[in-house]
This record gives sequence, structure tokens and C-alpha cells, in this order.
Amino acid sequence: MRIIASTAELRAAIRDAHAGSVGFVPTMGYLHSGHTTLFDHARNENDLVVASIFVNPTQFGPNEDFAVYPRDPDGDAEKCRAHGVDLLFMPSVAEVYPSGHATTVTVDHLTTELCGRFRPGHFAGVATVVAKLFGMVGPQRAYFGEKDFQQLAVIRRMAFDLNIAVEVIGLPTIREEDGLARSSRNVYLSADERQVALSLASALRATRAAYRAGERSASALCDLLAATLTRHPEVALQYAELADPDSLRLLRGTTLEAGQGARAIIALQLGRTRLIDNAAIDHDDPSFQTTQAGA
Amino acid sequence: MRIIASTAELRAAIRDAHAGSVGFVPTMGYLHSGHTTLFDHARNENDLVVASIFVNPTQFGPNEDFAVYPRDPDGDAEKCRAHGVDLLFMPSVAEVYPSGHATTVTVDHLTTELCGRFRPGHFAGVATVVAKLFGMVGPQRAYFGEKDFQQLAVIRRMAFDLNIAVEVIGLPTIREEDGLARSSRNVYLSADERQVALSLASALRATRAAYRAGERSASALCDLLAATLTRHPEVALQYAELADPDSLRLLRGTTLEAGQGARAIIALQLGRTRLIDNAAIDHDDPSFQTTQAGA
Repeated sequence: MRIIASTAELRAAIRDAHAGSVGFVPTMGYLHSGHTTLFDHARNENDLVVASIFVNPTQFGPNEDFAVYPRDPDGDAEKCRAHGVDLLFMPSVAEVYPSGHATTVTVDHLTTELCGRFRPGHFAGVATVVAKLFGMVGPQRAYFGEKDFQQLAVIRRMAFDLNIAVEVIGLPTIREEDGLARSSRNVYLSADERQVALSLASALRATRAAYRAGERSASALCDLLAATLTRHPEVALQYAELADPDSLRLLRGTTLEAGQGARAIIALQLGRTRLIDNAAIDHDDPSFQTTQAGA
Repeated sequence: MRIIASTAELRAAIRDAHAGSVGFVPTMGYLHSGHTTLFDHARNENDLVVASIFVNPTQFGPNEDFAVYPRDPDGDAEKCRAHGVDLLFMPSVAEVYPSGHATTVTVDHLTTELCGRFRPGHFAGVATVVAKLFGMVGPQRAYFGEKDFQQLAVIRRMAFDLNIAVEVIGLPTIREEDGLARSSRNVYLSADERQVALSLASALRATRAAYRAGERSASALCDLLAATLTRHPEVALQYAELADPDSLRLLRGTTLEAGQGARAIIALQLGRTRLIDNAAIDHDDPSFQTTQAGA
């Protein structure tokens, strides 16, 4: 595996590899099994696997955790190596945003609700940096986790709209044994908070169960989702919604139809940690299959 | 030459050509020698030449000339064929902006002054459609005329910032015998307006001459530019500025330095027609060499 810091060197290395296909996994590092699962898929499906680790400042708000976002470059490189990454791109902020950088990619509609309401500018930062990384790498396939469900929808839309010839592949959320979605930010949680954080997966499971039991009112399901989360006084709920999986249109006030693919999506603040999670409501969700039978 | 209306077909045709290099000339059609010169350069420098004709609605303001923009698809195709274009892409608006399109590319700084002040949203429309066309075509080189000088700077910046692996090439403005810059919009001019329109090139020549005679005050040169244009009562001047050729920073209030590459840039409304023009101030400008000796 080669570790590369410059865009020009990255381009040259990809060109010189003469690979039939390039699989790309962009990350912000502090890698966990959510990421390494993406590497494994990329490795299985492509000749060359490129990963990037870049904590992108433009997708953090002024009061967010950019400065303290966890970093472990050596451990990350080891995980990349172990999971078949060929080229690991770790650029500096100045390499990605040289002086004079003036271009922003925005995606409307999909970004107004859910996390967009609580993180103004976040998705413009994401769309811009991912468009740039796609430009640098020129991958045939790019891999993202479904844990950041809105991000995945925004990136899919951006790549389609900008006619970027990449297949954007979303893979199921990877969870801890007890159901907590893996996230680099879980390291922020105290032991007590770690227990409360289980309520995200519990709320999603309860909502899936209510759907299976016949509940079709999106509002009732949203209320159940919220009620399960706010049982814990430590939880500052940001949102608990059902949304269309492609357009992210909120479904509150509607009656769910079979095969609609409604997605339950939640975000909350727990102490200093912001946590998000989501699940399919009306069909099997692979991310829940191993964590609790019957859920 | 093949005429293609679908993005998928365009991609397939480019892929199947297995060309070592692709040269691309995006246009809005109603082609003149300004465009065909770009085709000739693309033909000389690339294995495959792709041209597009697309009157992009998103770069026109609500009170602008989208609906009446001149169109001549058959004549245009003939000119493309005669100048070595291999693939002519003529998509519909729905092909470029299918339902649900939500992504916009904006370029800051470069777009606030000059035409940006008079055409809000124009350069976001330009940057977005050109990013999309670059995504569709994947060219090694793309060719633009210097007549739309701010547009060229914006596209250069956008392609660099989004790490699109394309060389953006600007070529000198092509002029009529009497100096009028060729433009598809010249067809709007009445015979009287056509005479008044010569004042754009005259003003640029006068300003170049004043610089050569020793004037180094950017403000004085801007005033001369404006004064030459507003001698005609029919002219509604929009702006007459000197600007840095890369950043487009306005130079009024500064003293020009040798080799700075200052660019005189003007826009005016003449009846229902908006006209723009520009010239290098402190070095030879090829677009003026054939029109008036000593200018």
C-alpha cells in the first residue's frame, strides 16, 4: 500500500496502475469496521482500491467538533493495509483547498430537512469535497455507509446531477453487538452515555416492530420513535422522522404504502456528542439482522 | 460526424472511439467563426472532437433573451461537419436537467463584479452546465473564446477547484473586419446599432493606445473607456473596468505595473441587445492585430 499526500501524485499513481476499475472509499479516518467493510467490498469488486482520509473542515459548523475530531493516522493506515487498500490518500487541508479556492457544490431539496436543519452548510461541504475527490480519483465505484443516510442520498444526487461517471454504492450500517451504530464519534461517549445511546437502535427496532404489527400512520410511527428516544432525560432530540429513501421527503401526515421503502431517521445530542441512526421500516434491514432476533 | 441527443449515447460513442485525447467545444449554437476557430484548434490538438450545442436556460435571467436566443441547428451542424467535429451533442433541456435535478455549482469572488453584478445567477448557471458537460464528455482539453472573459475565468476556476482533469484553453476573440467582436447576439442589432456597436472595439483600442502612450492610472484608463462608449447616447453602459486577468479583481484606484496583464472589460446595453468585449491592455492582443494597424 502506498500512502500519498499530493493530488498530482495520486493521479499519477492511479494512471500508472492501468486498472480496469477503481473502487474508492472516502473517509474522515478513525476507522472502524463500518469503514473496513467498505474496503472489503471495494477490494472484491475492483482492480484498484483507493481510500482517502481527510477531515474536511468545510463540512463542520463553527460550533462543531472539527478541532477535536478523533484522529489515528498510523492505526488507520494499518487497517487500510489489512483490508486491501492499494492507495491511501491523506492530503492536507491546503492540498485540498489551495489559496483562491472559490467553488461550492450545493444540492437543494434533499438538504433542507433532517440534518440540514441542524447543520447549515454541512451538505454543501460534503458535496463539494466529494465532487473534488471524485475528480481526483476518477473511480468507477464509490462506497459509503448507510449510517449517514442523508449524506448518501446527497452524494448520489450530486454525482448523478453533475454527470460524474461513478456508481455510488451504499452499504448497510455496521453495529456493535448491542446495536449501537459504529461511528468514529462513539469515542466521545462516557460509559453512562454509551448505555443511553442504545436508545437509538431500540427506537428504530420499536418502530420497525410497530410497522410489522400493522401501524401505517407515518405520524404515529414518528411519535413512537421520538417517545422511545426522549424517555432518557439526557437525550436532546433533534429530529425523528420517516422519509422517502430517495427524495428524503418527510412522510409525517401520510399513510405508508407497501414497498414504499420508508426510512426512519433520527438525530440527537447526548452530552457533547451528536449521534445519528436510521433504518428501513417496511422491509428487512440487514443492519438489524444480527443484533436482535425478531427486530 | 454523428449528431447525438442522449447523454448515454454520447458516453458510449466517446468510449467506443478509444481516442487518445478528446477535445471539447461547448457552445450555445448559432455558430460563427469565433466558434469554428475553436473547432479548428480542437481538431488540430486531439484525436476526437466533441462539440455541444445547448442553449442553457439556467444561465439566463428572467428578463433575458432565452426564448429568442437565435437558433440554427441545420446550419450549425453543417459548420461543425466542415470544421472536423466528430460528435455533435445536441441535448434537450430535459436531457440535461431531468426531473429532480438539484445540484448547483457556484464560484465565489470571480463572479461578484463585472457581469456578475448585472446577471445574478448567470455564472452559477454557466459553472453548473459546464461541470455537467465535462462530466458527460470527460475531455482532456476544452476550448472557449476570450470574448466571454469572465466566463472563461470562472470555468477555469471551477475546473481547477473541482479537480476535473481537463485543460481549459482560452482563444482570442474573433472580430469582424471593422473590429466588432463576433457574437451570436450581433444578429439582434439594427443597421444603426451595428455602427454604434463599433464603439466597443474603439474604446478598447483607445485605452490600449493611452496605456502605450504612458498612462498608468487604472482609474484614468477606466474613465477613458467609459467616456468613449458613452459618447453615443444610445449606449447604456453597464460597466467599463480594468481587472486582473486571473482573479478579476478590479484595478480602479491602482497604478498599473508592467507585465501585470491588466484586462479592459466592458458591457453595455444597446437597444434590446447586451454586448460585451474585452482586451489585454499592457501587451499585444491578437484579437486586435488584424483589425487596425497600430492598435
